[in-house]
Amino acid sequence: MLNSVTDEFEAQLRAILPEGAFKSDTDGYFTESRGRWTGQGLVVAPSSTQEVSAVVKACNDAKVGVVPYGGGTGLVGGQILQDGAKPVVLSLERMIKVRDVYPTEDTMVVEAGAILASIQDEAERIGRLFPLSLASEGSARIGGLLSTNAGGLNVLRYGNARAQCLGLEVVLADGTVWNGLSRLHKDNTGYDLRDLMIGAEGTLGVITAAALKLSPRPASVGSAMIAVKGPAAALALLALAKERLAEGISAFELMHRQGFDFLDEVGPEYHAPLAETPEWTVLIDVGLPSGLQADEALVDLFEAALEADLVTDGVIAQSEAQREAFWFIRENIPEANRRIGSISSHDISIPLSVVPEFIKIGPEQLEKIGEFRINCFGHLGDGNLHYNVFPPKGLSRADFSSERDQIKEAVHDLAHEFSGSVSAEHGVGRLKVGDLERYSDPAKLTMMRAIKGALDPNGIMNPGAVLR
Amino acid sequence: MLNSVTDEFEAQLRAILPEGAFKSDTDGYFTESRGRWTGQGLVVAPSSTQEVSAVVKACNDAKVGVVPYGGGTGLVGGQILQDGAKPVVLSLERMIKVRDVYPTEDTMVVEAGAILASIQDEAERIGRLFPLSLASEGSARIGGLLSTNAGGLNVLRYGNARAQCLGLEVVLADGTVWNGLSRLHKDNTGYDLRDLMIGAEGTLGVITAAALKLSPRPASVGSAMIAVKGPAAALALLALAKERLAEGISAFELMHRQGFDFLDEVGPEYHAPLAETPEWTVLIDVGLPSGLQADEALVDLFEAALEADLVTDGVIAQSEAQREAFWFIRENIPEANRRIGSISSHDISIPLSVVPEFIKIGPEQLEKIGEFRINCFGHLGDGNLHYNVFPPKGLSRADFSSERDQIKEAVHDLAHEFSGSVSAEHGVGRLKVGDLERYSDPAKLTMMRAIKGALDPNGIMNPGAVLR
Repeated sequence: MLNSVTDEFEAQLRAILPEGAFKSDTDGYFTESRGRWTGQGLVVAPSSTQEVSAVVKACNDAKVGVVPYGGGTGLVGGQILQDGAKPVVLSLERMIKVRDVYPTEDTMVVEAGAILASIQDEAERIGRLFPLSLASEGSARIGGLLSTNAGGLNVLRYGNARAQCLGLEVVLADGTVWNGLSRLHKDNTGYDLRDLMIGAEGTLGVITAAALKLSPRPASVGSAMIAVKGPAAALALLALAKERLAEGISAFELMHRQGFDFLDEVGPEYHAPLAETPEWTVLIDVGLPSGLQADEALVDLFEAALEADLVTDGVIAQSEAQREAFWFIRENIPEANRRIGSISSHDISIPLSVVPEFIKIGPEQLEKIGEFRINCFGHLGDGNLHYNVFPPKGLSRADFSSERDQIKEAVHDLAHEFSGSVSAEHGVGRLKVGDLERYSDPAKLTMMRAIKGALDPNGIMNPGAVLR
Repeated sequence: MLNSVTDEFEAQLRAILPEGAFKSDTDGYFTESRGRWTGQGLVVAPSSTQEVSAVVKACNDAKVGVVPYGGGTGLVGGQILQDGAKPVVLSLERMIKVRDVYPTEDTMVVEAGAILASIQDEAERIGRLFPLSLASEGSARIGGLLSTNAGGLNVLRYGNARAQCLGLEVVLADGTVWNGLSRLHKDNTGYDLRDLMIGAEGTLGVITAAALKLSPRPASVGSAMIAVKGPAAALALLALAKERLAEGISAFELMHRQGFDFLDEVGPEYHAPLAETPEWTVLIDVGLPSGLQADEALVDLFEAALEADLVTDGVIAQSEAQREAFWFIRENIPEANRRIGSISSHDISIPLSVVPEFIKIGPEQLEKIGEFRINCFGHLGDGNLHYNVFPPKGLSRADFSSERDQIKEAVHDLAHEFSGSVSAEHGVGRLKVGDLERYSDPAKLTMMRAIKGALDPNGIMNPGAVLR
């Protein structure tokens, strides 16, 4: 059992941390973007790894919980502890330094509080690319992105956050600092503790710094919006694109017409790229080496796809502005979803070959529960669908509060039957602890609990997240 | 303390396994390619995951060690237990099935005993690439390659073995089967147990099957041998190549003239690619998307490098036969090394930006010990050097047996000072357990021991490998 932060404990922390580490206005730390949870705790923001270590050691000695806090953009409640003993909320917001940049080795060492957009900018400044990219990049911090192994738009080409990280510095549950800030591309000396910490959602330690891998910037980039004949045709188009352009495909997004309809209904306003919005649209992004022109390559791909009877219409961006307009649509579908108000949202992944079957069967399962609008869109190249269920027009999510759990279970059960995952990129947090227990192989849970017990015997690190 | 395999224990295993699982001629399992170690044990070769589970459970109940055995090609003694209680040597050689191939999702599920070359062939059969490639690919088995997180020639582009694997099936130390055979590209449900098992060298469980990720085959491939002005020029050439061709560079190997001299001295015979063998040669391999010609791209790259004063000569393969002749040289340098007989061989990696400095200082450090010939070659694109030290002409390795440890320590100390690794791709095995202790951050060792204790409390899995 953990203890609450007491006045005595706070006084103890105040004795080891400077005044600036304590926040007065802390409301923002206890709510999250969708207003689902309300947290609690004593918010401290250390400015160095040593200070983080001192805080965590004090918490461990006093058996006080530690909730690591990055940009607060997580969608599964990993940064919010609602109930139980009052914890220390440990914000990395004051550790934002780029410690070192190594242009000749395409690496960069940054502190955990660095904001993703600023890391992208720093990479661009030296002519490189930090390819991790997602909607919240203006506020998400790298420590949180790594702790949740964030995905986003470019996973197909560059992998998820884990694949962009070479090394970590982590404060462990007893306050020990593990210096694993390797800039090596190959290092087979012992267990992969880096990948264990990445995706552990702060339950095994606090990431304080990371060595990041940068990528070359493609010489020519381009985008196309393509009307495909259905999900199976979209997959065939992906295969065709891979065959021709290999790693040159940076993103491959599928969007159902429902997303466009929602944008029409509630905004934001957008410019329709195709004369008639088809049932299924693919947004493809390519980045090609020198000697190739992205727009020409996209024209060739489109013609081959037309020949193969996969597509019915398409438009290739003729300018950076048009490219941004395409991406504006994709990036604002979540905003339109928010305005409509989903009954239940899902971040699932499915083995690629069975995605079309899943998309066919999903609505049949949901029809057994009631009449809904389904907005299915996402990172098809990774098999990652955001499968969101909405009330019919005229009704609101509140009208379906009693069906919500049933809908969630139906979608997650189906994903599981298809050998899929119920958390493709958002993580487990506190929202999906029960799902993890329900769908995981028992041996996996046993191993996870054994590792948690071995590395955090007092259970202070992000208590209640991932594992109960 | 572990128990030896007794007659009673063997009888117990014979009661649960069919006759065919027991090997009569077992000498081959107890020696390794360089004749350094001699092993011992009862060799069993189960034909199914259930049989592996039964063997491991029996061993755990009786506290008998289990040494997992793949192709026997490891170079650090991970597959050989010389001393101590007689273990069960668990060979995966009868589990070689390709369980499933999924062309539309670029994945394949294979049993752990499948040989790398046969997996490459199977991928080619469906028009895909399994990019893991190394000298022993004709005999190395995928379970061992994953357990050691093998590297090889294409890590620069495709990553190491870990990056080619989506999921695992593993028999844990108590005999439990963990079914983690996910074919998903994105799955953020809990700790990354896959990457923990990969590279654990059989000390946390026995990999019995793997879901592998396949890649598109590049449309146009080509190679060039280029005389560079030194290691710094080689790195500048790499940067130039990345800038132009991005992921199109599949391999980027550096070779010192010493390797060519050794080939001249002891063979195998080869065709010299350049009129005059330079001090430093780069072998570059590219694989480009459709629309680009590899030979043209290499000509352009060479001209740009000439302009930048990085290179002095070069030849671009005009045929597949010439390409193979280039790679014959690179792949036979280890054979020439073997014939000469190194005093000490090292598999180190160094952050890319300091590789030239390391190459400059290394010989200065070794001169303090004596006069040696150094053959420095390897995967420069990954910062991975095979840094091997040989006697002067006329003397043999036996003449330097008393200097051997000193040489090893000098090279490893230097690599460590340069923030490098003393095992880039070969692993720790039993050879480098002391190095791991000497050079690791203490927090890393503490975590590794805690995890080992949590997942294998009786210490039966590959005893003495990685951790004492």
